Amino acid sequence: LCAACLQPGPALEKAVSAFRCVCGEDGVSLGEAVRQQHGRDESVHRCCPPDVVVFPRCVEEVSALAKICHRYDLPIIPFGTGTGLEGGVSALNGGVCFSLRNMDQVLDLHQEDFDVTVEPGVTRKALNAHLRHTGLWFPVDPGADASLCGMAATSASGTNAVRYGTMRENVLNLEVVLADGTVVHTAGKGRRPRKTSAGYNLTNLFVGSEGTLGIITKTTLRLYGIPEATVSAVCSFPSVQAAVDSTVQVLQAGVPIARIEFLDDVMIDACNRYNSLSYPVTPTLFLEFHGTESSLDEQISTTEEISGANGGSDFQWARDAETRERLWKARHDAWYAALALRPGCKAYSTDVCVPLSRLPQVIVETKEDLIQNKITGPLVGHVGDGNFHCLTVLDPSDSDEVQRVHLFTERLARRALAMDGTCTGEHGVGLGKRALLCEEMGPMTMEVMRSLKHTLDPKNLMNPGKIL
Amino acid sequence: LCAACLQPGPALEKAVSAFRCVCGEDGVSLGEAVRQQHGRDESVHRCCPPDVVVFPRCVEEVSALAKICHRYDLPIIPFGTGTGLEGGVSALNGGVCFSLRNMDQVLDLHQEDFDVTVEPGVTRKALNAHLRHTGLWFPVDPGADASLCGMAATSASGTNAVRYGTMRENVLNLEVVLADGTVVHTAGKGRRPRKTSAGYNLTNLFVGSEGTLGIITKTTLRLYGIPEATVSAVCSFPSVQAAVDSTVQVLQAGVPIARIEFLDDVMIDACNRYNSLSYPVTPTLFLEFHGTESSLDEQISTTEEISGANGGSDFQWARDAETRERLWKARHDAWYAALALRPGCKAYSTDVCVPLSRLPQVIVETKEDLIQNKITGPLVGHVGDGNFHCLTVLDPSDSDEVQRVHLFTERLARRALAMDGTCTGEHGVGLGKRALLCEEMGPMTMEVMRSLKHTLDPKNLMNPGKIL
Repeated sequence: LCAACLQPGPALEKAVSAFRCVCGEDGVSLGEAVRQQHGRDESVHRCCPPDVVVFPRCVEEVSALAKICHRYDLPIIPFGTGTGLEGGVSALNGGVCFSLRNMDQVLDLHQEDFDVTVEPGVTRKALNAHLRHTGLWFPVDPGADASLCGMAATSASGTNAVRYGTMRENVLNLEVVLADGTVVHTAGKGRRPRKTSAGYNLTNLFVGSEGTLGIITKTTLRLYGIPEATVSAVCSFPSVQAAVDSTVQVLQAGVPIARIEFLDDVMIDACNRYNSLSYPVTPTLFLEFHGTESSLDEQISTTEEISGANGGSDFQWARDAETRERLWKARHDAWYAALALRPGCKAYSTDVCVPLSRLPQVIVETKEDLIQNKITGPLVGHVGDGNFHCLTVLDPSDSDEVQRVHLFTERLARRALAMDGTCTGEHGVGLGKRALLCEEMGPMTMEVMRSLKHTLDPKNLMNPGKIL
Repeated sequence: LCAACLQPGPALEKAVSAFRCVCGEDGVSLGEAVRQQHGRDESVHRCCPPDVVVFPRCVEEVSALAKICHRYDLPIIPFGTGTGLEGGVSALNGGVCFSLRNMDQVLDLHQEDFDVTVEPGVTRKALNAHLRHTGLWFPVDPGADASLCGMAATSASGTNAVRYGTMRENVLNLEVVLADGTVVHTAGKGRRPRKTSAGYNLTNLFVGSEGTLGIITKTTLRLYGIPEATVSAVCSFPSVQAAVDSTVQVLQAGVPIARIEFLDDVMIDACNRYNSLSYPVTPTLFLEFHGTESSLDEQISTTEEISGANGGSDFQWARDAETRERLWKARHDAWYAALALRPGCKAYSTDVCVPLSRLPQVIVETKEDLIQNKITGPLVGHVGDGNFHCLTVLDPSDSDEVQRVHLFTERLARRALAMDGTCTGEHGVGLGKRALLCEEMGPMTMEVMRSLKHTLDPKNLMNPGKIL
């Protein structure tokens, strides 16, 4: 629906129920937008466009539209930036896509309280640009420049989670429109204490619900002071075990490390080729330290000592922004470096998370699996959390290869499950991991999840076919 | 029921349904135990003993007993250590108290993964004693030596939350027995990744549910490395505003402070009298820093500088355990020092939490309220979280005073609500704050909470009359 026509009333109701715009034009097809923005995983998840796209400008419009959908039993698919990796915005049964990009205001910034409230059109980079002169920042950083409300919906995290937590730890309150159009505030309207034990934690029920319980129309976030200084470092290791042992020992030593990223030999080799770098082709840790100048010296020397004791070598570090950027370029460009291994192919990023001590085994077994099944799949990991991805690169027109990658990702997830881990550390379940979720949770826990879904969305209109 | 008789089967079923022990004796009355352990707030919350107490020894017995209660529509009241402050274990409608003290094993300690699983009989001090030789600890520390599963049930926190988070951030998985006896694992059986986005966050739905959704029979917790060194400090301020400004600036400066506790002039005066100390009778911060020796020097000098710029004086600090203990004694003994202000009286601790910037106003208004209404109520606060308590001391036989304190605590909670805060930062809702919770959440959010309760416990057997 074009914005001009989007006025609650009989005309809008008729249009939405007939999948036509009020002014007579066809509803905007989201198919192309989804394909463009969601291209990363189209080889794995089928793109199903919705029947109509609406662009509400405020929560009242979201609520009015949801009421119409509820009356006519139309599926509702919330859409932020479409950068999710598990097919979360695919309109399996058609229906109405709620694109929330026109709700793009940063509201209620409280600098002294370290909190801010944003609408769904605000991305993480836009928020940090907005905060530039405040000395504050929001640290959760999935690869894409995602909508912050979308990040809440998918329980996103990223490289900084080891220090600053994921969306679970950083969302204070949500405004949510339920399937029947009811507007609720998960912690009460306008509430933003840093800590609470008031009633059921609805905030964290909706964080990670992937649009299946309601449409997030505002999120209140914790902010952090920008560190006085930042130092980046890179260190090569003789084995996966040595890199992980270093990580565990650095955490045990209480080093408040901000980022600790693992790249396997295949990934380093790809990065070297892509950026004409010359890192040793071995398991490698990319590190970042936040703090004061002098506290950083100590963090670095402790980390260097631990790394050295585990056979780490070629330790490089950088203080100024430019050198840091150059040092971390390999990690930042990992996705494109992986793609460049096979020009013309597509990439699909898997996502599992295991207890730290199980990482070496799961990574070694996964590398053997990749070789045996002739799959190109460099590994990158948020190793401080036990979370890693395999960036499989495949030819989507080769159905045999697509099937091999599919079976590989299932085996990888089951390997993680067998080691007390999860089939998804940060990408969510979406379309791709519903069967694996059942294996992870067991039938009784799934039954509880289904009963909650049924309670909040008895008609199964909210993003149907996802998670459950 | 005596442990020997507690065997699932027809005899047990008959006994529980008749509120009698299988061996013919009456069920153990919990009334006295509740009165003893729960004496702190008996002046505010009426003690209602259950009809029978059972002492299951394993989850299978908990499940079997819950099934019997479900069949006969008997209320179930989970009982850990009974140290909650809002009447959470009171058996309003009678029924069966599940005392979980015989399930007291520390299970599945994974040192390299920084996690452990415990049964409900394990208290926080017992766990830390168990961990003594591992270099790890669990930091969440409510005043009492509470059961860790009970702490999960009430979403407890304490003085370390500013650095280490509350139970919400530190519970990885729960085993829960639902009202009908079904056993579920909120994150899947045995799962313990440090991070996950797999399905609905059931773990944090049960954390803070105060026994109204199920009985927590195991909790998997995050652990932390014991800091290499600890330094404690005390600093006096000319005003509440100055103490809070210091706190905000210390947090903004990125000092990873472990504890930052506020005591008002009345509290300091009480502590001086109780322990023959001589702290200046002004608003005071008690601080604790965790880290390496040299990082502590910097944390302290930054904090000292910020405090000084805000008029802080009499800065004292201590490194060795004995001096630290002496320095913090005033804070540790605050409860008893408050009680000693009026020998023979009882204390009731309120609990609100507001955004940091609102703390000075809410504290100043609260102190005026106390004076106007002739209530003895020293203030202590976890000021880094915006959370504080008023330790009201009252004569429970003076019904006029009881009523004045009751009205005061309601005004205090409403003052916090008017400042975007919550009526409970860490004590929970229990019996005492149900009406306030409705004001905090609004009718629509309450309706969602009620619908979730009805879904998981349609007969309203789980700890009835609490929260909702």
